Amino acid sequence: MANFGVTDLRIIAPRDGWPSESATAAAAGADHVIDNAQVFDTVAEAVADIHKLYATTARPRDMVKEVMTPEKAARESCAVMQAGQNIGFLFGAERAGLHNDEIAIADTIVMAPVDPNFASLNLAQAVLLMSYEWRKAAAQDTLGRITEFDGPEREGLHLRGSKPASKSDMMGLFEHLETELDESGFLKPPEKRPGMIRNLRNMFVRMGATEQEVKTLRGVVASLTRVHKRRRDMP
Amino acid sequence: MANFGVTDLRIIAPRDGWPSESATAAAAGADHVIDNAQVFDTVAEAVADIHKLYATTARPRDMVKEVMTPEKAARESCAVMQAGQNIGFLFGAERAGLHNDEIAIADTIVMAPVDPNFASLNLAQAVLLMSYEWRKAAAQDTLGRITEFDGPEREGLHLRGSKPASKSDMMGLFEHLETELDESGFLKPPEKRPGMIRNLRNMFVRMGATEQEVKTLRGVVASLTRVHKRRRDMP
Repeated sequence: MANFGVTDLRIIAPRDGWPSESATAAAAGADHVIDNAQVFDTVAEAVADIHKLYATTARPRDMVKEVMTPEKAARESCAVMQAGQNIGFLFGAERAGLHNDEIAIADTIVMAPVDPNFASLNLAQAVLLMSYEWRKAAAQDTLGRITEFDGPEREGLHLRGSKPASKSDMMGLFEHLETELDESGFLKPPEKRPGMIRNLRNMFVRMGATEQEVKTLRGVVASLTRVHKRRRDMP
Repeated sequence: MANFGVTDLRIIAPRDGWPSESATAAAAGADHVIDNAQVFDTVAEAVADIHKLYATTARPRDMVKEVMTPEKAARESCAVMQAGQNIGFLFGAERAGLHNDEIAIADTIVMAPVDPNFASLNLAQAVLLMSYEWRKAAAQDTLGRITEFDGPEREGLHLRGSKPASKSDMMGLFEHLETELDESGFLKPPEKRPGMIRNLRNMFVRMGATEQEVKTLRGVVASLTRVHKRRRDMP
């Protein structure tokens, strides 16, 4: 839950009582979730203030009820929240899952697109998956409520603060490399030279180098040819 | 993995040995995944036949490398598979995660849109999330969405009919280049060597080279060091 910014935990009739030392230990620092958890005796009490309730299950049930993927349920529930209503996701206990009586009071069944031969997720996995989809949906939310998290700016090429190389930087690298390769005899025979140069330039352009990386590459070329140079300069 | 139909498990230097009774017990019936798991000593061996490698991590790294969400990585990797290439997802051990040296040989970093205050997923959770997104992408694929990527004329890297380099090809190039740079004195001082090697590997991985291009680059390295070599071999 904490991984994806979900904090409102409600526990129904916990087998080992509450508060629970093992729960705190397992929470690995997410104390705010554990400390603020509310405990109820029944599902009915736990969901009393909820307007739209989603029940997660691995098995299709013999009920006439809407079924959604976690992704669709996450999107819909965000829209419901936007409209000022309270939403909740209901998960069953580890082994038994949800009882049909519990599912009956939910508005919607949520089923992940699992392999039917291995359909049952652990409780922790089911909560993770639903929280993950909920967070993705909330981030896409038009009101941008959760946009301070993640954000698409984290996607794409991560430049670690350095500037991308300019074409001028790249041309400097090409000319340096090609001069050395002319000298070492790599760009032969002459009729193949233009094609070889195009291929090399294509490769290095695809690298998408930063300014600093172009300097590093020039250092590599200079270093590899170092002895070569020295020998040429010898009397 | 089995929940989402992913079956090809590769384990690198398992702490408690392999096969493992506790792994079988935890697999809860997914014996086909456990029984067919392959064990390797190093990451390099485990990914030798992989063409496109995705490394999952919670923390932004000090590397210039493409970053994707699990969703985007799943879609892209499906398209890459459609094109006949081998893909892999790399996960770190429970506590430490992936080392920068391991991430350096990956093509892409995958980061889930987590709350930065609780950014670290359990290993099992990370694998679940990635498997889930992968299955969603593969399912859309079956409906024909991604098969359109098929033709190299259309989208993605145009390979001109050549085969993409495998990680084994890339490791060969790295070792060749780094051996020469050790000899020429570029990778100094010793305490900076690991970081310099990571940076260089990152650059060349980003190039997305074909088999033929890796041969060309090795020819470039050999040619630039040619006189160097000759001189070393002189009496």
